[in-house]
Amino acid sequence: MNVFTSIKDVKEPEALVALALKVKNNPGVFGSYGKLKTLGLVFFNPSLRTRLSTQKAALNLGMQVVILNINSDSWILEMEDGAIMNGNAQEHIREAAAVLSQYCDIIGVRTFAQFNSRAEDYGEFILQKFIRFSSVPILSLESATLHPLQSLADWMTITEQQRTERPKVVLSWAPHPKILPQAVANSFVEWMRIAHVDLTVTFPKEIDLAPSYLKGISVTHNQEKAMENADFVYAKNWSSFSNYGKGTSSFQDWKIDERKMALTHNAYFMHCLPVRRNVVVSDGVLDSDHSLVLEQANNRTYAAQAVLLKMLGYEG
Amino acid sequence: MNVFTSIKDVKEPEALVALALKVKNNPGVFGSYGKLKTLGLVFFNPSLRTRLSTQKAALNLGMQVVILNINSDSWILEMEDGAIMNGNAQEHIREAAAVLSQYCDIIGVRTFAQFNSRAEDYGEFILQKFIRFSSVPILSLESATLHPLQSLADWMTITEQQRTERPKVVLSWAPHPKILPQAVANSFVEWMRIAHVDLTVTFPKEIDLAPSYLKGISVTHNQEKAMENADFVYAKNWSSFSNYGKGTSSFQDWKIDERKMALTHNAYFMHCLPVRRNVVVSDGVLDSDHSLVLEQANNRTYAAQAVLLKMLGYEG
Amino acid sequence: MNVFTSIKDVKEPEALVALALKVKNNPGVFGSYGKLKTLGLVFFNPSLRTRLSTQKAALNLGMQVVILNINSDSWILEMEDGAIMNGNAQEHIREAAAVLSQYCDIIGVRTFAQFNSRAEDYGEFILQKFIRFSSVPILSLESATLHPLQSLADWMTITEQQRTERPKVVLSWAPHPKILPQAVANSFVEWMRIAHVDLTVTFPKEIDLAPSYLKGISVTHNQEKAMENADFVYAKNWSSFSNYGKGTSSFQDWKIDERKMALTHNAYFMHCLPVRRNVVVSDGVLDSDHSLVLEQANNRTYAAQAVLLKMLGYEG
Repeated sequence: MNVFTSIKDVKEPEALVALALKVKNNPGVFGSYGKLKTLGLVFFNPSLRTRLSTQKAALNLGMQVVILNINSDSWILEMEDGAIMNGNAQEHIREAAAVLSQYCDIIGVRTFAQFNSRAEDYGEFILQKFIRFSSVPILSLESATLHPLQSLADWMTITEQQRTERPKVVLSWAPHPKILPQAVANSFVEWMRIAHVDLTVTFPKEIDLAPSYLKGISVTHNQEKAMENADFVYAKNWSSFSNYGKGTSSFQDWKIDERKMALTHNAYFMHCLPVRRNVVVSDGVLDSDHSLVLEQANNRTYAAQAVLLKMLGYEG
Repeated sequence: MNVFTSIKDVKEPEALVALALKVKNNPGVFGSYGKLKTLGLVFFNPSLRTRLSTQKAALNLGMQVVILNINSDSWILEMEDGAIMNGNAQEHIREAAAVLSQYCDIIGVRTFAQFNSRAEDYGEFILQKFIRFSSVPILSLESATLHPLQSLADWMTITEQQRTERPKVVLSWAPHPKILPQAVANSFVEWMRIAHVDLTVTFPKEIDLAPSYLKGISVTHNQEKAMENADFVYAKNWSSFSNYGKGTSSFQDWKIDERKMALTHNAYFMHCLPVRRNVVVSDGVLDSDHSLVLEQANNRTYAAQAVLLKMLGYEG
Repeated sequence: MNVFTSIKDVKEPEALVALALKVKNNPGVFGSYGKLKTLGLVFFNPSLRTRLSTQKAALNLGMQVVILNINSDSWILEMEDGAIMNGNAQEHIREAAAVLSQYCDIIGVRTFAQFNSRAEDYGEFILQKFIRFSSVPILSLESATLHPLQSLADWMTITEQQRTERPKVVLSWAPHPKILPQAVANSFVEWMRIAHVDLTVTFPKEIDLAPSYLKGISVTHNQEKAMENADFVYAKNWSSFSNYGKGTSSFQDWKIDERKMALTHNAYFMHCLPVRRNVVVSDGVLDSDHSLVLEQANNRTYAAQAVLLKMLGYEG
């Protein structure tokens, strides 16, 4: 696997889920597969789960890990082609990515939507520069519009917990005080449409997702209706695709609470974390024994480990 | 050992000192004991000795180490139960601690007194949240009111250097331009009262320690009297327990210098570092061949290594 | 090797180049040489290449690596002897260096010219403090006036690419919007005068280098003349030695571009990176197949690995 930025980069998604579950069962089994191989992790943004789980995944494979926090450890990067660099930027992404490729066998990159321009975010401006200018595989640790390692971990979690052959999975928008990207939602839809689930997406119609992601997916703007018979409820805030970069303080009643969960088929609750308690979801739901958020976080390690294994050339 | 926050968590303190000295003698002896085990280090504050010595201790055991600098690498944490998280805090300590427990086999936490409320600091507000919400052993890397790894290293140092069976050990307050916690002093008293030493604590009576820590300990407010016949002089600043969170610029003459050391039984000088030269202690004393500060720092590695070994289940 | 701060610390420079090339050919060959040895990396400044390449070099040798970012991870350091530390500085360099020596078998230090005083910078104020107060080998990761690991990597690169027995190597000043140190230029001259090359240095006469470094070296202030028959053109900005700490916005026409490269003997282009595109050098030159900047960056790993090997006692 030469790049991992979307499910489109994965030839056999189900086999990848199976590999991740196999690795989880025995984390040390490929413990020397990464010997003398170096994973570079480049962070443009804060991170807890991604930082720790990806590092652990690489160490489990015997890889070396080097970390670069752009904006604190390193130089200010120029992103524009042809720039005359007489301002603040000290190094061009061309050199940064190419030099990282000298030291690393795989580069993981964590970026975030900038909300300056929808075209730029959806063109994955920064991530694509890394892909273009590096000479080694690029692993997305979340990009402006997708978060594939999260979705892989989510798929693992659903596989482990499903009680029916084809569970009903609901992705529900939920309120949040800040303007957040659509990455987790886009990615979840992209992966779940391949999985053996019935997916319903629900959100206030003012806070839509990109039509291309929703094509052929069951959508409703009635959250309570969506919850009916759900086996899994995945809550996540995002900001509007149409009204890009704008937030809202409306729809506080879309918070997931015990009353809404009671409408479901005794559903499991899912969220990628970090989560705003009592804004996105009530304490009661999050702390219940039907909350899978920690298992989702745990599976991030093995999702990353499976993808790294494929990038290292593992054929199994 | 499921938690290490105080000597109260240690069943056999003397055996732990012995184990630390054994490890010091052969740092690689348990080199595969931590294979595929991960130590997470969480820092709320700057650190040099703790950061490096604990990391080295874990690597000496073959553990993997992942580091999280809260406030730079990660999200802003909410600490209050039941909070409606619509402000700046991005993640609740409940999730942060529980998620860290998914990736780490042991979590080390470095906190610091906040000086907002004595009750909160002495209740070890942050550390106790980690203990409550994590599912793996918690190692204190210094907390609001105690610094047990330092005290273990100090005990090792005294054991190595003592010239008499029951040395006289003096803990003396010393001046400092900032308001510092009582953690090192509290902890030193807590450990030394178990050790085979005669402990005297001396401080200006306005700058007291918590009565519970001093119970049964020899206390004098006459520094020079305390120094008489001392075998070890441990200098440390702290701020008043009674007048909590208030500093003072008085008592500059409590600085430890050559004249005061001449009152002792050719005593060794100790300090946990970092130290303010010529405020806490004179250059002459710190640079003398009777200064043990570097040996104390060195012993931090083996103190941590012994505690990690016990947390990993070592029974020897 | 007890210290590596300049070519003067290297007994047999050519043998060191050969060792670095040997290591490059088989990076894992000395993979257990550093077992249970710890490299500490201390950064006073941002870094990408140095941070990652030195870390990778150490891991390739089986060493443990601990990193300290002064000013973010650690305490504020006092550098003056005899200081009464009642201000902002929290720890003296004496303790910091001595304590690091307790945890590390080798300490790498990255400093930068302060431009407060030429005497202080050329006295290598900070680096010399580390050397004086530490008890283990000190590896310069760039200092105020020299960058020996870069020069060693540059020598490797020239050795690999040279097409004649005694190539003509030109070090040319180039424009830059900021005031930069003379470290890379000083160091390159210091190493190239030992190598089997004909070295010419060219710069506007107002922006001179220290006479001691230029002694016996061919110097011209006519850049185009210098380029004639060059086999390698090394571009680098620096600020004036005579007019210390002062910048200039003149001489923008000293930028290296395709027209100037056409004057050479089909020369290779070199730069230590990071580089300001279209200020120091045109996109066309930097992106041509005669640019060696990535190979120079790549060789940093093996340069560091060879020096670490010697510091670990390798005699081969």
